Amino acid sequence: MTTQKGFDPHAFRAALGTFTTGVTIITTRAADGEMVGITANSFNSVSLNPPMVLWSLAKNARSLAIFSNAKHWNVHVLSVDQEELSGRFARQGEDKFAGLELDEGISKAPLLKQCTARFQCRTAFSYDGGDHVIFVGEVLAYDHSDLPPLAFQSGQYALTARKPREELRLGATPPPECNYTEDLLGYLLGRAHYQMLHALGQLLNTQALDERSFFILSVLSIRDRLSLEELNAFIAYTGMVASEESMAALEASQLVATESEDGVVRYVMTADGREASLRQIALAKAVEEDMADKLGAGDAMALKLLLKRLIASSDPGMPDLWSAR
Amino acid sequence: MTTQKGFDPHAFRAALGTFTTGVTIITTRAADGEMVGITANSFNSVSLNPPMVLWSLAKNARSLAIFSNAKHWNVHVLSVDQEELSGRFARQGEDKFAGLELDEGISKAPLLKQCTARFQCRTAFSYDGGDHVIFVGEVLAYDHSDLPPLAFQSGQYALTARKPREELRLGATPPPECNYTEDLLGYLLGRAHYQMLHALGQLLNTQALDERSFFILSVLSIRDRLSLEELNAFIAYTGMVASEESMAALEASQLVATESEDGVVRYVMTADGREASLRQIALAKAVEEDMADKLGAGDAMALKLLLKRLIASSDPGMPDLWSAR
Repeated sequence: MTTQKGFDPHAFRAALGTFTTGVTIITTRAADGEMVGITANSFNSVSLNPPMVLWSLAKNARSLAIFSNAKHWNVHVLSVDQEELSGRFARQGEDKFAGLELDEGISKAPLLKQCTARFQCRTAFSYDGGDHVIFVGEVLAYDHSDLPPLAFQSGQYALTARKPREELRLGATPPPECNYTEDLLGYLLGRAHYQMLHALGQLLNTQALDERSFFILSVLSIRDRLSLEELNAFIAYTGMVASEESMAALEASQLVATESEDGVVRYVMTADGREASLRQIALAKAVEEDMADKLGAGDAMALKLLLKRLIASSDPGMPDLWSAR
Repeated sequence: MTTQKGFDPHAFRAALGTFTTGVTIITTRAADGEMVGITANSFNSVSLNPPMVLWSLAKNARSLAIFSNAKHWNVHVLSVDQEELSGRFARQGEDKFAGLELDEGISKAPLLKQCTARFQCRTAFSYDGGDHVIFVGEVLAYDHSDLPPLAFQSGQYALTARKPREELRLGATPPPECNYTEDLLGYLLGRAHYQMLHALGQLLNTQALDERSFFILSVLSIRDRLSLEELNAFIAYTGMVASEESMAALEASQLVATESEDGVVRYVMTADGREASLRQIALAKAVEEDMADKLGAGDAMALKLLLKRLIASSDPGMPDLWSAR
C-alpha cells in the first residue's frame, strides 16, 4: 500500500471503485413533460426520521437543470435482471424509456417496474459537492420486492454472496492441524457435487440408474445418434467410460436402441429413454429449486456464475455438447 | 410490490438495505487526543475534481461533536478479512483501537492497516441531513491494495461475485430448445468437479492413482486406522465403495498397511502413503491457487462460501471426518 497524493483521476476512480455499491436509476420529469433518467451508484440512505436518501449528479450533466428544477424524483434500486436497463440509462442520446411500461407514482416522475426497491422522493436539499451536486430527498413513498439486487464493484457488475453471521464450518468441530482441510476448493466442489447427486439419487431411486447411466442418458438427451466413441468424448471429463456392455444394459432396459450406419453402431434414445430422461431433468430441477430456496435466489445465481467462470477458466478443451453439428 | 406510505422504521430500513454497499470505518482524533472510530456504510464518492467523498453520521451519535470539530478524518474501505474489525467499531464502550497497529497518516487521525482502500480527508462541508449530518471531505491522500473488499447487503455481510461484461456461455453456440441446459446447477457442479479432478489428474499422472484411491487416501490422511466399514462411511457420499480388493491394491503399492485389533482389520497409512498424500494435497493446492488466480481472490472466496452453504443445506447426514473420536 503506497499513499497516492497525486490525483490521477483514473487511479482515484479505481480506489473509489473498491467500495461496493448497488446500482440505481433515478428518474424525473421536466416541466415540458420530458422524461429523464440516469444510472447512478452514488445513492445512499441518510436519515430515518424524517426518511431521507441522497445521490449526487455531475454539474456538467445534461440533466442537471431538469433535476435542479424538479420537485420530485424516483430512485430505483435495480435487480440482477436489470443490467441491460442500467446500461441503457448510463448511455446518452437514445429514448431511454422506449418500450418500458411504467407504474403510476405519487408524482409525475417515471416509476419503473420490476426493481428490487423504489423510493419516491421530493427534494429536501441540494448541496454543493465539488464537481457534483448532492441531492437529498425526503422519501414520500417506497416499496420493495424479493428480486435480488444488482451490485457494482471496481467497474464491473457483480452479484453478492451473503455470509452467515456465524462462521460456517461443515465439521462439527474445528479440524486439528491437518493439511487436508474442508477449505480446499476441490473438496468443496466434490462434496457439493456428490451431495447433489445423492439428493437426485433419492428421487431417482425408482429408476435404479447408476451415475454412469445418468451421464450417458443426459448426453443422448441433448445429442442423439452418437457412436460409442463420440459418446465417450462427451463423458470423458468425468473419468467414466461407456463400454459396449454398459450400453447393452441400457438397451436391455429399453432406454436406448442401436442403429447401424456405414458399419458404425450409433446409439439413439428410445421413447422410454426420452421419457426417463425428461423425468430425470424434472427431478434435477426440483433438487435445484430446493437448493436455490435454501441459499436464496441471488446467492444461487452467484454460485452458478462463479461455477461458470471456474469451468470456463479450467476447461481442458471439452467438445461443445450443444453446438450444431 | 406494494407502495408503503407509512414509515415503519424497520420496513424502511429493510427497503434501504437492499442497496448493496461496502463497509467502512471512519476515524478521527479529538482535541484531547482521544481516538474515535465508527463503522459506516453511508460512504460514497462525490466529486473527482476536487476529489471529494461523503458519509453521514447520526445527530445523536456520541462522536458527533468530535467529528464536527475535527478538521481531518480517514475513511477505510474494509477488506473481507476485516469483518471482526467492522463489528468492533460498530459497538460502543470498548477501546476500539486496543491492539491495533496504526500507520502514520498526513493528519493525526488514526490510519488502520490492511484495508482495501483508504482516503485521508479534510472536512469540506457538513450539511444537514434530517436526523444525520452529511460530512463531505476533500481527499488529501488515498491508497488502495489488492485485498478483496467486504460488502454489506440486507443486514448481512457479503462477498461479491463479479460478472464479466459479456454473457458467459460455456457452449460455443446457444443451446437449441432443450430441457437440459448448461444453466442447471447439477451440471455446473459436476463439470466443475470433474474438471478440477482432471487438472489434478494431469499433475498426479506419475502416481497413476484412480479417483477412488485418491478419496481413500484423502480420508486416511485425515483419520487413520479405520476399518473397511468406517472408511466406507466416509466415502459413501461419493457413490464409491472401498472393497477388500481395492484396499489390497493400495497395500500392494505400499501406500497402506493393515493392522488387526480385536479381530477387526484396520487400515493405516504407510510412510509412503503419507508422503503420496502430502504430495496430492500440495498438488491440489497448486490447482486451487491457479483457479483462484484466474477467478480473483474475492471471487474464489465467494465460491467457497457458497459451496459451504450449499453443502451445509443439503447434507444428508455425513459423519464428521474432522471430529475428535
